[in-house]
Amino acid sequence: MSHLAAVMATALLAVSATALGATPLERGRTLAEQGDAARGIVACAGCHRADGGGDEALGAARLAGLAPAYLATQVERFRAGQRSHPVMSPWAERLEPADITAVSAYYGALAPASNARAPSDVDAAAGRALAETGDWPGRDLPACVRCHGPGGVGAGTVFPPLAGQPYSYLLAQLQAWAAGRRHGEPMALMGAVAGRLDADEQRALAAYFATRPLAVADPADDLPDPSPAPATASVSTPATTVAATDAVVPEHLGAVPAGRAEAASRFTPPGRDALPEGPLGEMVRLGAHLFRHTNTDPRSAPHVGNDQTCAGCHLDNGRRADASPMWAAWVAYPAYRGKNQRVDTMAERIQGCFRYSMNAQDSVSGQVPETNGLVLDALQSYIYWLATGAPTGDTAMSGRGYPRLQPPAEGFDRDRGAVLYAEHCALCHGDGGEGLLVDGEVVFPPLWGPRSYNWGAGMHRVDTAAAFIAANMPLLDTVRFTPQEAWDVAAYINGHERPQDPRFDGSVERTAARFHASPFDLYGEPLGVDGAVLGQGTTAH
Amino acid sequence: MSHLAAVMATALLAVSATALGATPLERGRTLAEQGDAARGIVACAGCHRADGGGDEALGAARLAGLAPAYLATQVERFRAGQRSHPVMSPWAERLEPADITAVSAYYGALAPASNARAPSDVDAAAGRALAETGDWPGRDLPACVRCHGPGGVGAGTVFPPLAGQPYSYLLAQLQAWAAGRRHGEPMALMGAVAGRLDADEQRALAAYFATRPLAVADPADDLPDPSPAPATASVSTPATTVAATDAVVPEHLGAVPAGRAEAASRFTPPGRDALPEGPLGEMVRLGAHLFRHTNTDPRSAPHVGNDQTCAGCHLDNGRRADASPMWAAWVAYPAYRGKNQRVDTMAERIQGCFRYSMNAQDSVSGQVPETNGLVLDALQSYIYWLATGAPTGDTAMSGRGYPRLQPPAEGFDRDRGAVLYAEHCALCHGDGGEGLLVDGEVVFPPLWGPRSYNWGAGMHRVDTAAAFIAANMPLLDTVRFTPQEAWDVAAYINGHERPQDPRFDGSVERTAARFHASPFDLYGEPLGVDGAVLGQGTTAH
Repeated sequence: MSHLAAVMATALLAVSATALGATPLERGRTLAEQGDAARGIVACAGCHRADGGGDEALGAARLAGLAPAYLATQVERFRAGQRSHPVMSPWAERLEPADITAVSAYYGALAPASNARAPSDVDAAAGRALAETGDWPGRDLPACVRCHGPGGVGAGTVFPPLAGQPYSYLLAQLQAWAAGRRHGEPMALMGAVAGRLDADEQRALAAYFATRPLAVADPADDLPDPSPAPATASVSTPATTVAATDAVVPEHLGAVPAGRAEAASRFTPPGRDALPEGPLGEMVRLGAHLFRHTNTDPRSAPHVGNDQTCAGCHLDNGRRADASPMWAAWVAYPAYRGKNQRVDTMAERIQGCFRYSMNAQDSVSGQVPETNGLVLDALQSYIYWLATGAPTGDTAMSGRGYPRLQPPAEGFDRDRGAVLYAEHCALCHGDGGEGLLVDGEVVFPPLWGPRSYNWGAGMHRVDTAAAFIAANMPLLDTVRFTPQEAWDVAAYINGHERPQDPRFDGSVERTAARFHASPFDLYGEPLGVDGAVLGQGTTAH
Repeated sequence: MSHLAAVMATALLAVSATALGATPLERGRTLAEQGDAARGIVACAGCHRADGGGDEALGAARLAGLAPAYLATQVERFRAGQRSHPVMSPWAERLEPADITAVSAYYGALAPASNARAPSDVDAAAGRALAETGDWPGRDLPACVRCHGPGGVGAGTVFPPLAGQPYSYLLAQLQAWAAGRRHGEPMALMGAVAGRLDADEQRALAAYFATRPLAVADPADDLPDPSPAPATASVSTPATTVAATDAVVPEHLGAVPAGRAEAASRFTPPGRDALPEGPLGEMVRLGAHLFRHTNTDPRSAPHVGNDQTCAGCHLDNGRRADASPMWAAWVAYPAYRGKNQRVDTMAERIQGCFRYSMNAQDSVSGQVPETNGLVLDALQSYIYWLATGAPTGDTAMSGRGYPRLQPPAEGFDRDRGAVLYAEHCALCHGDGGEGLLVDGEVVFPPLWGPRSYNWGAGMHRVDTAAAFIAANMPLLDTVRFTPQEAWDVAAYINGHERPQDPRFDGSVERTAARFHASPFDLYGEPLGVDGAVLGQGTTAH
């Protein structure tokens, strides 16, 4: 058993069990507040402070309220040499598994606290754009909050809070990742991210998150910021070269992916600076908000019967090329859709998203939003605005939808997909496909089960999901699936139960014949060896 | 009393009175079939044939079924030298007023008949584009059917049928007008039209109408043809110069108006050749049809409570710059509207047209078309298609809406407007503003009264109507109002009763204060000296 595995094993007992005559929390508190002089272990609070809120001058991280599993993992990283610090590294060496469990549990149980502040000579607001919307078109940089949770409050046990971490700590970590002095994180994510930031951006981001509230606050808004590259209503200029930093950027992590650079002549939707004034601007703003918070906003939530949002599939809040960007969709509607066998307007198309991808049948209202209502009008206003300057009727804009894959020469294989999923997808979407929510906000959408898209959604098709995955998953491009791998992992994901197709007529067999007659559709297909068939739907939740 | 006035006076008695021992119809029949050798009057049927269907070889017009008033007027034109023909001119000189009345009544009462045929070396189909959609952007040429009624079957007593007239006759008339050998028609309309056609176009048009059915048939469709100038999804090239013909074109009639030529860099909507294939194309086609036949098509008619259509205001079936072209509207919605105090989508904006301009409250259904229904989806598909290539979000496309007028320095005057109306508007819209319909199809929309737009429609405002009129009325540009004249005639038109504002709350005074507080809005204003106030609405019809 590895050291980390031993820590995790003891963690399972941490709350109820006692060891060495004290509960783990008591043991953790002792270590945190007093250390263990006999073993040369200094008190954590000496640097991280009694409240666990970190120390700006020392560059010591805030620990209070962080997930114990995350904290324990970090101690292991120091032990493994993946992180390095003059005090932490030797200290970590001296800890027993039970010590790590205890002190992690202790800090995790503390009320969130922060002693962070931004230096007066760094403009924290300047970090907002990258933090909240990233620079996906220019540098394949998702927003920080895309993984670290709304406002950077952290998400799950893998993506720690950035909000309220000392500026000095955050900046040091970004520099360490960019220079290759910190590593070991899954899929080399942070090395890639930090390597694509210049020194000013690193400082601005650190200052921004240092000053954010520790809990999910009302989101300011969800409008895209002007991106660092010109983001006007026009075809964008070629991606700017990432500015060199003093840090050594590992070549395999810092480069802008070639495929994206080639696509730099693509349409660029407008940024916040181009927001129209007055009521239309307010509707655009509301639409941008609903797009991301579809399942929680009280106006749209009554029509959402699962844990999905528009932005869950339409990445970068509907801006991302090759992830069904809304600007390309706007100019291509009304359009005939074989699925409905009718010409749909944009309003009807969005209602389709609510019906299937957001499973309105299990929502509070049981209905899609009404056509002339606020929700659909706001979403249309936002989408319209995203398309500013796009030519009406252009059904072939570069980046529309996602690039279709050739049918897989070897078919697809759910078992191969399961292995890939565990390695590359479960980190965010969960071992059981359950996704990850923070205070109800979707950070990573569920991929199957009762809170996922239903059997009528486009994404339930293996070919659709494979195309989306090949172009977009994992979120950061440090790992890219081959087409065959995308087929396999899509088959694994869509080979699970999910909410019933709203067109279900009481018979899986009939519904399969009527709506799912495709070799890329697993509805009605055998689930395994026991005769079970996919398409039973999920029970209410 | 002029000769013509005398003819008209006897015409009033034509059916019941007798003269010279025979009814006028009998007298007319005698003249038509036998002539009057004693007076040197040849039998009309000798050239126009016994069935009144005209003679292709002789170039003799079809007379059967034409409006007696039109026929009588033509005889008067021959007498006045405004028309000229070796047989007709001397014949006309020899007729008494009662003769003219009688023979006009006789031919008017005959069943429509035609002996026309197109020559084998002229492509009748080539005339379709100009006949059905004109070339408004290039040459200020409205479609022929715009005045001559659907399919060219004729409209009222001023605009004769073209359908089924002999090719030879139609061509000779176009040539005569272009050369200035035929004149006297109101506002020099036909001289201007014929002068803007080249010789091939004259032949093609003559052939096209010669072969059209005599009664209103199912319209083929209402898609714009490709215009003679390139009509692709792009900004148009400058208007082509009108090809010279052998005929002498009077300079004041034949020239392309300067203002239009300057605007030649405007957006050009696509033509029929760019129609998408499949169901979307069918929806575009349906939308184009509903746009023109809103009040008669069984799908849209239940929502129209008057004799208005989309195309009545949005000229050239929604294509005409400065007449609220739909291509400019599409890219500017969703938009905030002060009238509704909300952001409207295009669907909602169209519903507003039904509610007000088409007075849905008095329709069979009493309702505007539902948002996700066929009517609105088809109209949106058509409008979307018209905007092909237009930049999304461009709210300032050249030609959008109509050019606003400065407030009139001298105010506006309904009495001055009445004089102008009688001179330039009543010809088409009727002395009583009642408009002109043919088989239910709107040729010229009613401008007031129960079949007109209601008190909530934008057009009821004097400033809106004045701007529309200044830019667009009369339909052909041989007469143009000064801004002051446009204000006056708009005030005259909108100083009449019309259907009630759907927002009426039982009190004209309150409704006026709430929705009509503008110096350019006559709702609630005194109608005359008797204390009556505008805004009573009209009773059902």
